[in-house]
Amino acid sequence: MSSTYWSYIKVEELLALQNGHAKSDEDLSNDEVMFITIHQIDELWFKLILRELVSVRNLFAQPVVPEQSLASAVRGIRRMQAVLEHLAAHFSLMETMTTRDYLDFRDKLGSASGFQSAQLREIEILLGLPDAERIALGGGQGSYLEALRDPTGAPSSAFHRVQMRLADKPTLLEAMREWLYRTPIQGSIPGQAGDAETVATFLDEYSDHHAKVTRSQKEVAEARAFLRGEDAPAAGSAEGGSTQALEAERARASRVRAALVFIESYRELPLLAWPREVIDAVVAFEQQFVVFRQRHARMVERVIGRRTGTGGSAGVDYLDTTALKYRVFREVWAVRTLLLRKGDLPALRRPEIYGFASGAP
Amino acid sequence: MSSTYWSYIKVEELLALQNGHAKSDEDLSNDEVMFITIHQIDELWFKLILRELVSVRNLFAQPVVPEQSLASAVRGIRRMQAVLEHLAAHFSLMETMTTRDYLDFRDKLGSASGFQSAQLREIEILLGLPDAERIALGGGQGSYLEALRDPTGAPSSAFHRVQMRLADKPTLLEAMREWLYRTPIQGSIPGQAGDAETVATFLDEYSDHHAKVTRSQKEVAEARAFLRGEDAPAAGSAEGGSTQALEAERARASRVRAALVFIESYRELPLLAWPREVIDAVVAFEQQFVVFRQRHARMVERVIGRRTGTGGSAGVDYLDTTALKYRVFREVWAVRTLLLRKGDLPALRRPEIYGFASGAP
Amino acid sequence: MSSTYWSYIKVEELLALQNGHAKSDEDLSNDEVMFITIHQIDELWFKLILRELVSVRNLFAQPVVPEQSLASAVRGIRRMQAVLEHLAAHFSLMETMTTRDYLDFRDKLGSASGFQSAQLREIEILLGLPDAERIALGGGQGSYLEALRDPTGAPSSAFHRVQMRLADKPTLLEAMREWLYRTPIQGSIPGQAGDAETVATFLDEYSDHHAKVTRSQKEVAEARAFLRGEDAPAAGSAEGGSTQALEAERARASRVRAALVFIESYRELPLLAWPREVIDAVVAFEQQFVVFRQRHARMVERVIGRRTGTGGSAGVDYLDTTALKYRVFREVWAVRTLLLRKGDLPALRRPEIYGFASGAP
Amino acid sequence: MSSTYWSYIKVEELLALQNGHAKSDEDLSNDEVMFITIHQIDELWFKLILRELVSVRNLFAQPVVPEQSLASAVRGIRRMQAVLEHLAAHFSLMETMTTRDYLDFRDKLGSASGFQSAQLREIEILLGLPDAERIALGGGQGSYLEALRDPTGAPSSAFHRVQMRLADKPTLLEAMREWLYRTPIQGSIPGQAGDAETVATFLDEYSDHHAKVTRSQKEVAEARAFLRGEDAPAAGSAEGGSTQALEAERARASRVRAALVFIESYRELPLLAWPREVIDAVVAFEQQFVVFRQRHARMVERVIGRRTGTGGSAGVDYLDTTALKYRVFREVWAVRTLLLRKGDLPALRRPEIYGFASGAP
Repeated sequence: MSSTYWSYIKVEELLALQNGHAKSDEDLSNDEVMFITIHQIDELWFKLILRELVSVRNLFAQPVVPEQSLASAVRGIRRMQAVLEHLAAHFSLMETMTTRDYLDFRDKLGSASGFQSAQLREIEILLGLPDAERIALGGGQGSYLEALRDPTGAPSSAFHRVQMRLADKPTLLEAMREWLYRTPIQGSIPGQAGDAETVATFLDEYSDHHAKVTRSQKEVAEARAFLRGEDAPAAGSAEGGSTQALEAERARASRVRAALVFIESYRELPLLAWPREVIDAVVAFEQQFVVFRQRHARMVERVIGRRTGTGGSAGVDYLDTTALKYRVFREVWAVRTLLLRKGDLPALRRPEIYGFASGAP
Repeated sequence: MSSTYWSYIKVEELLALQNGHAKSDEDLSNDEVMFITIHQIDELWFKLILRELVSVRNLFAQPVVPEQSLASAVRGIRRMQAVLEHLAAHFSLMETMTTRDYLDFRDKLGSASGFQSAQLREIEILLGLPDAERIALGGGQGSYLEALRDPTGAPSSAFHRVQMRLADKPTLLEAMREWLYRTPIQGSIPGQAGDAETVATFLDEYSDHHAKVTRSQKEVAEARAFLRGEDAPAAGSAEGGSTQALEAERARASRVRAALVFIESYRELPLLAWPREVIDAVVAFEQQFVVFRQRHARMVERVIGRRTGTGGSAGVDYLDTTALKYRVFREVWAVRTLLLRKGDLPALRRPEIYGFASGAP
Repeated sequence: MSSTYWSYIKVEELLALQNGHAKSDEDLSNDEVMFITIHQIDELWFKLILRELVSVRNLFAQPVVPEQSLASAVRGIRRMQAVLEHLAAHFSLMETMTTRDYLDFRDKLGSASGFQSAQLREIEILLGLPDAERIALGGGQGSYLEALRDPTGAPSSAFHRVQMRLADKPTLLEAMREWLYRTPIQGSIPGQAGDAETVATFLDEYSDHHAKVTRSQKEVAEARAFLRGEDAPAAGSAEGGSTQALEAERARASRVRAALVFIESYRELPLLAWPREVIDAVVAFEQQFVVFRQRHARMVERVIGRRTGTGGSAGVDYLDTTALKYRVFREVWAVRTLLLRKGDLPALRRPEIYGFASGAP
Repeated sequence: MSSTYWSYIKVEELLALQNGHAKSDEDLSNDEVMFITIHQIDELWFKLILRELVSVRNLFAQPVVPEQSLASAVRGIRRMQAVLEHLAAHFSLMETMTTRDYLDFRDKLGSASGFQSAQLREIEILLGLPDAERIALGGGQGSYLEALRDPTGAPSSAFHRVQMRLADKPTLLEAMREWLYRTPIQGSIPGQAGDAETVATFLDEYSDHHAKVTRSQKEVAEARAFLRGEDAPAAGSAEGGSTQALEAERARASRVRAALVFIESYRELPLLAWPREVIDAVVAFEQQFVVFRQRHARMVERVIGRRTGTGGSAGVDYLDTTALKYRVFREVWAVRTLLLRKGDLPALRRPEIYGFASGAP
């Protein structure tokens, strides 16, 4: 096949896009071209993350997730994490620019701001960050969606991207919770006779064991309440619904959390080995997201100082706050505080369910 | 000013370029899109390196290089190094792709090959890598320029880029050697009465001191010959010229090398502090280039194995060989082997030349 | 000289120290040995930082700091930063340990805690972190010094280390402020006739220029007050002293800040090039310290969850709070927000003071 | 339990070991202390690698390797890789030392050399690097074991360490080959009726498929010969033995290689998912070892230049050569060149063998 590197990679088209608001990038300083280029590279990385995110979400959104596809889900999540690592590393390159070099072209940015990256918003949305948990930008700004309008007020391409993503359901969080909900616990699956009792018994046993090794009564009580899903509406969606809906929501949350605890507790079992890897990968990914946001705040503080951001945001403080507050997989993190030593675990029932066809579990 | 992130960064234009030979990137696997994207990012990084390289070359190509501009040269070279570090780090991301994932789209590449990156060739050329030192690709390939023709044989955009760069003189190596040549040595500069003697005396003294602390007579003799520029035509350009031209070339090389030794030896002197930083930055940059090439070889070996490359190259071995053989700043590296302890240095003459206006040197 | 690697490095002595509370490290799990070893490596890195810190402090504590020694100060600070980068990178290795692996030996730690690292406290103290700005550990703990007592209540070796360091004056912050105070501003140095007026005029001009390009009146007023040192007692030490002492403290702070602004503004001048590098290095170092602390918090959250720390601290929240609150070089950071574009700077006076002996400035 | 950080980590004992040949490290320069400390840290990392290596080797040396222990083997290998990454990163810290700083204390090293690190030799030995493949140090040195004698000629602690490790069998390579040998191929295991035929049929089919997609007849022939184990004695141990022994050795090698190809080819099957991860981890680890060695060569070239090493070695060239020549898992690497696209694979037989107890494969 006749193919060349430059036609496949589209090198010339690509290298013609670094001119910002000028006719040609010949008219710009090296610093401004670097500034533009790093943002373009960030967008390219975001695109890769979004693609993997859609694939992983689709995988978990299936009514039945084939066990052997979990390894590919893990690979996708780990790749997203690896990309985030590269993104975080870029900040050190931006820091080769002095404050004064930056000030030389800052006025050109007008109200353009990294906050207007549609793809970063899409990633947050598709992961499952609810709008209600977003931090206001400050400075009398409207919602984050409003920041994506054109100067004329018309919806931009960025606005459209984000709106389409808001309609792209389920989120990864929702899809993974559905999948976790179906995890066999002590050999029992939802719909099976006695499943609710089996799960409740497991959680009671677990809570009892947890109580034995934990000094603080407050921590013990919180653990028990969490495992029973008593705070569920906060995490779920039953807004002020009927008592019945609330009950269902709690039962649902309780089984999801039981699954998280169960998978971590018997992580050596063949059937749980890949679910465990999924959870480990999710933890590593969300941790890397926090690291990325915190590193972003550090770069801004260093290069720009604590000026008001071009987008009108409170700058460094806004970035540091979102780093600590934006958290999607809250239940996964909460479970880490409840884990027990192997010797302190409840007894495993029906281990044969969790083994390979060819041998003992 | 009315400006938006998406218009300034050209986000939509950028995100429309990852479709390779397909209509849309929707038709490609995540792996192929990642493969394309990483190469695009590489090209964007190469563009930044090229811009800095041109700036640094222009700076040293001036008949008089203002002392206070050296800090900016150092910043440029260190930025090039930082970009190369990012480039080297990308390979670990490429390695999230299995061999089989790669094989799934490899046939589409046809004879396209990373070897066809015009910008990487441009960087090598502008640094000063001579064509004569290039390693043949193997597999009956023609010169590296021939590899940049379109399948029809017509010169491509890549071909034009490289040709224009071959005409873009001087190279950084040439420009830096001119600048080094003019370094005041023991207070003397070229054109000044007795300069040749002053330099020769310094080199003799230095060679004598080197001989005292070096056991191997072979190393002693080689050092002396090197400092006298006896191998100069190899490094320079006097191809078979007259005896007179050869003499001039050697004298020139000798003074350049004397400057390198002098700067490293009295590196604390204010006037030499920035030249020393320039040299340190050049060493760090060229080292990083080798690291980048070796890491590239490792990635190819891991993902592709030792197959013949799509471009017909010998693959891993070709990459490993170029890593060790392509070296532009050979004299700078050679000097590292000759450096002496502070206590073993010849006495400094005329230190007052090398100080600040406001105080002692 | 007869020397061997193992005697020089003391390999056998070193490899005999990883047994924790056991007779031999053969009795420990790989995870516990890794846990111990990483902490030991951290202490070795801390030792290197402390040594460089003492050297840099000593350098700046001189009554006259030779200009050519600044490059060595920069090298020392950059090395400290590089070590901190390695320290931050270690956390990813600790994360190869699962929560359960950690719980298996956690009880052995008793109340031992990373918070008891005397050297990390020493680094903070020698940098200049005042005791008054320390965050309480929570959990009814006494001061950080009390946490360094032996279980019997007797002062430990760690206690002694920290106490000696508290007496080791000046801190780097104090020494650097003294040095900054003496910076020639518009060609004038302290003690010189009219120095106070020259500095005041420069600051007024600077404030005026700053006001022209800044929209927020609040930011303008804050900048002016900061440059006049009006908040000085907070940063300095005149606790409730006389009006006269307060005035002196403010004048002192004002001149230090004028120096910071002056150095950043005319950073290309030969005599200011190394002071500027010093400041850049300090910023990079303190930024890296924040990155290190935030990365520490992320590791603890991932491996341990939000349990109470072994040392009784509030764990993750404590670490995240110290990361954002512990800041030594506050004035250096504050100045970044006030920097102006080159074209907006006041005119430079007496440039000849800032040049090389051998040429124009 | 009464425990303190300093007693658990043995801080004081540890911090007393950085004095090299001096009474106290107060008598040494910062550079020399850093030089000593980095080497100590390297030894601590080596110790961790060795411990994991022993654990992983023991795991594979079992007559039956439980499937669920493979995840822990993977974790061990990945941890070794992560440690090697840290080791490679250290070189950049060593490079904060200038050549002259190094020369200031180089004479003290005498003939001490990093080459005398017993633990690095132990790692190579336990991995399975045969003595016969070692590169001579050059400079008339004896074997690497001789370099570990005390100046008096007496065997040192390092000598004893290496000797004991030479007797510590099997190597990881040997243990893993035993385990690979037992891999079920097309549902058949060694000892089962018709196993040899099943394996031979699979390899013939695979070779045929490989031939169809490979242009070079040489590559096709080499692949076939490799899969038949025709070069086996080179990799194995039948030195000049009987024809029968040679045949057995080849059959053995052939089945090991068939396993490698089989695992990579049907890597999605649940029972092969962890073996595949083992192989991926081994590739990543050995790749990282090469990266570590090459980065080592770059550091030496930069700091020391191309002087003869203190240990009498040829320095940079020796390090670069070992980086490319020392390779333990040669068959694993060779297989990467033979992999086929999913669509080009032979048909899988008896998939039910490779599934979970609870569902379809």
